[in-house]
Amino acid sequence: MLEEALSYATKNRERFLGELQDFLTIPSISTDPEHEADMRAAAEWVSSQLAKIGMQNVQILPTEGHPVVYGEWLGVGDSAPTVMIYGHYDVQPPDPLELWSSPPFQPAVRGDNLYGRGSADMKGQVVACLKAVESMVRNGGLPVNIKWLIEGEEEIGSEHLDSFIQKNKALLGCDFCLNADAGILGEQEPSITTGLRGLAYFELKIHGPNKDLHSGLFGGIVHNPAQALAELIAGMHDSRGKVTLPGFYNKVRKLSRKERENFAGLPLSNKLYRTQTGVSALWGEPGFTAPERLGARPTLEINGLLSGFTGTGSKTVLPAWAMAKISCRLVPDQTVKDTAAQMRAYLKHKAPKDIRWELTYLHGAGAALVSDDSPGVRAMSQAMKTVWGKTPHLLREGGSIGVVEQLQRRLRVDSLLSGFGLPDCDAHSPNEKQHLPTWYRGIETLIRFFYNLG
Amino acid sequence: MLEEALSYATKNRERFLGELQDFLTIPSISTDPEHEADMRAAAEWVSSQLAKIGMQNVQILPTEGHPVVYGEWLGVGDSAPTVMIYGHYDVQPPDPLELWSSPPFQPAVRGDNLYGRGSADMKGQVVACLKAVESMVRNGGLPVNIKWLIEGEEEIGSEHLDSFIQKNKALLGCDFCLNADAGILGEQEPSITTGLRGLAYFELKIHGPNKDLHSGLFGGIVHNPAQALAELIAGMHDSRGKVTLPGFYNKVRKLSRKERENFAGLPLSNKLYRTQTGVSALWGEPGFTAPERLGARPTLEINGLLSGFTGTGSKTVLPAWAMAKISCRLVPDQTVKDTAAQMRAYLKHKAPKDIRWELTYLHGAGAALVSDDSPGVRAMSQAMKTVWGKTPHLLREGGSIGVVEQLQRRLRVDSLLSGFGLPDCDAHSPNEKQHLPTWYRGIETLIRFFYNLG
Repeated sequence: MLEEALSYATKNRERFLGELQDFLTIPSISTDPEHEADMRAAAEWVSSQLAKIGMQNVQILPTEGHPVVYGEWLGVGDSAPTVMIYGHYDVQPPDPLELWSSPPFQPAVRGDNLYGRGSADMKGQVVACLKAVESMVRNGGLPVNIKWLIEGEEEIGSEHLDSFIQKNKALLGCDFCLNADAGILGEQEPSITTGLRGLAYFELKIHGPNKDLHSGLFGGIVHNPAQALAELIAGMHDSRGKVTLPGFYNKVRKLSRKERENFAGLPLSNKLYRTQTGVSALWGEPGFTAPERLGARPTLEINGLLSGFTGTGSKTVLPAWAMAKISCRLVPDQTVKDTAAQMRAYLKHKAPKDIRWELTYLHGAGAALVSDDSPGVRAMSQAMKTVWGKTPHLLREGGSIGVVEQLQRRLRVDSLLSGFGLPDCDAHSPNEKQHLPTWYRGIETLIRFFYNLG
Repeated sequence: MLEEALSYATKNRERFLGELQDFLTIPSISTDPEHEADMRAAAEWVSSQLAKIGMQNVQILPTEGHPVVYGEWLGVGDSAPTVMIYGHYDVQPPDPLELWSSPPFQPAVRGDNLYGRGSADMKGQVVACLKAVESMVRNGGLPVNIKWLIEGEEEIGSEHLDSFIQKNKALLGCDFCLNADAGILGEQEPSITTGLRGLAYFELKIHGPNKDLHSGLFGGIVHNPAQALAELIAGMHDSRGKVTLPGFYNKVRKLSRKERENFAGLPLSNKLYRTQTGVSALWGEPGFTAPERLGARPTLEINGLLSGFTGTGSKTVLPAWAMAKISCRLVPDQTVKDTAAQMRAYLKHKAPKDIRWELTYLHGAGAALVSDDSPGVRAMSQAMKTVWGKTPHLLREGGSIGVVEQLQRRLRVDSLLSGFGLPDCDAHSPNEKQHLPTWYRGIETLIRFFYNLG
C-alpha cells in the first residue's frame, strides 16, 4: 500500500503539477477587498479537491473574515492518531509587478522551478498535502485520521482564526498539527521546525509638553520627550547587546549540550545571514551563535519610532510626545506577563520624573517548542531520512506563527512545522518559486510520514 | 515737532484703529494658494499707506514667492542714521475656526483688546510703525532716514526673502533694522530683544539591513538601526543635561555678571514657563537659570524621529533605517561650521561599526546679538523709559528669526527687535488679540524712538 501510493504519486506528477498551476491562477489576495470573489474561488477550489479525494464533512465555514475550509477522514478510529493538516489558501499581494519575469498569476515552469505567487507560500505545500493524501486514498486508504484546517487569512495575521478555533474546539480536536507553512534549509538539507519564539509587543509613548513647542523659544528648559525616549531605549540593552530589563533572562531555559550541538550542525553560516540582510557584520548577545540567538535566545527589538517632524526639510519643533513600538521575542519558559511586568519595572525605575510614560501591551504569545522525541517529529524525521538519505536538521526558528500559538493555547495541540519551500523561494517577493524536485520529494515524504505514524 | 507729533497721534487714535481694522479684514494667508489675491491686496494696502504718508520710491517688488513692499524717505541725508523698518503683511491661517469668539477676519474690539488674525502678529505692529511715521511726517517731518521692507512670507519661513536681500543690497543699505515683529514682556514690562540664538539643523540617518526585516526571523543577529539611533541620541547629553558633542561649549561666550543680573531681573518665572508648556518640572543644563538657558546657552534638540512601523497596532519589523531630525541652538561665538564638525566627530567616534550613518546639514545661521550700547537700543530704551516710566528689560531670546540672520549675513545689518504684542496675545492661535492701550503706547514709543535717534 505504501509502495503503491508512492508509485501513484510518481506516475501522476504531471497532473499534480497541472492542478497546482490551476490553483495558482486564482489571485486570492486576502488583504485586498477587490479580491473577495477570488478568495471565495480559492476556498471552493480547496473544498472541491477535498471532496474529490474522499474527505468527509467538507465545509466552507464562515469566520468574521475570510472563510476556513474544513474536511476530515476519521476512518481509522482510535487505533491511530488524528493529525490536523494546517494550511492557507491566501497569498501575498504581487507588487511590485514590474519585477516579475512572468505574470504572478500565470504560473510558469522555467528550469526546475515553478514561478507564481503562492507557488511556495503556500499553495504548493497545500497541494503537496492534498496529493499525498490522494495517493494514499487511491491506494488502500489512509493509515491515520486526518482533519484539514485551511484558512484564508494567514497573510494578514490570522486575526479571525483564533475565535474560529475557540468556537470549534470539538470539531478541531486532534493529536497534533502538521503545519506545512514552512520550508527546508536547502535542496539537500531536509529540516523540521520544532520551535518558534513567542512575542510580547508594546507601544511606549512618552509625553512631554502639552503641545509641540518652538524649539528655539523653549529648547533648553523642557525635557524633550524624543530625547527621553531615546535614553530609555538606549538603556534597554547593555553595551554588549544583552537586554537589561530586570529579570528578563531569569526564566530562560538553558540550552543543553545536545541542543547546542544541534544548532552547531545547522547549515547556517554567518556569511549566509550577512547576505540575507545586507549588513557588514552580525550583532547580538555575546556567548551564543547566530542560530542560537535566533532560535533560543530572547530579544528586545525597536519596531518603530515616531516623534515630532519627520517630513522633508526642517521644522524647529520640540515634540509634545514620542512613540516607540517595542517587541520582545520570547523563548521557553518566559511569559508575556512576566515580560510586561519587567518592562513596566524598568520604566518605573528609569523614566525621568519630569516626563510621563504610557506603556500599552498590544499582543503576544508564549514560545512554542515540540519535543524532538514526539511521535510527529519522529515520523517526519524518519520519512525525510528515507527520501533524502540523511537525518533532517531540527530547527528552532525566531519567528512566531499565529495559528501555532492559537492551537497551543486553545486546544493544547502542538504543531510540527514542515514544508518544502527552499530559502531562496522568494515568498512575499517578486518571482516567488517552488523548486519542483523538492516538491515531488515533499509529496513522497508526506506519504511516508503518514505511514510512519500509522 | 515731537510734541505736535505725539499730540497728533493721540487725537487720531480712533482713525488709526479704524485703519488697522481695515487692514485686518484682508485674509492674507501666505501659506494658502487660494489667498493669492488677498496677498496682493494686503501688499497694495501697505504700499498705498506708504504713499499716503509721503514715502518715496514706493514699490511692490517681486520675489520668487509673495512680493515685498518697499518704500523710503531719505530726506535727512547723512546727518542722521538710516533705519530700516521691517515687517510682514502675511498672517497665519486662522484654523481651528470654531474656537474663535468672533470671525478672524472681522476685527472686533472687546474691552481693551482688538481681536482678529494679525492684530498682534503683526499687522498691528506694521500699522503702529506707519502711524508713528505719519504722525511725524504730518508734524514737521522725519528726524531720520527710513526704509521700509514689508515682506509677505514671514509666516512660511521667509524663504524667498534671502535672495531678494542679496539682489537688492544697494536698495536696502541702512544703519540698522527696527524689526517690529516682537512683543514686550507685559503690560507694565517694556522690553527690547537684543539677542537671538542661531541654529544648526541636521538630519541623521542610520542604515541597518538592506530592507525591513522580519523581527522574528532576524531579531538577535542584526543591529537594529532604531536602537543604534537611540543609543547615539542618548549619548548626545550627559545625565545632567549638558551636550556632550566634543568641544560644543568651547567657544560659548561666558555670561558677564551684568548679563546674569539682567537675566535675573526679567519677569520670567519657572512657574510661567511651566504654565506655558504644561510640564510638571523644568529641565536643562545645570548652573543656569531658565531664561539664561533659553537666551544665552546652546542646546541640542531632537525635532523628529522616524523608523519602521508607526501606524496603529503592530508590525514585527526590524527596520532598514532610522532617522532623526536634530538641531542645535547656537549662541555667540559658536559657529554652524564648528557645530557640524563636532556632530560629525561625535558620530565618527561613537557610531557602532556595524551600521552606516549619514549626516545631512539642512540649514542654519549663527546667533545674533546687538550691543546693549548701540544707538538703536539706547534710543528705544530711552523712549520706553519715558512712556512707561521704567527702564525696559533687555532680552535675549531663544528663537532664530530668518530676516534677522539674513540682514546680518547679507548686509552686516543688526536688528533691534521691538514690537507691542503682549505674551498672552495668542499669535498663531484662535482669538489673537492686540492690547490697545499697549498699542497706543507703542505708537508714542516709536515716535520718541525716532526723535531720540535724530
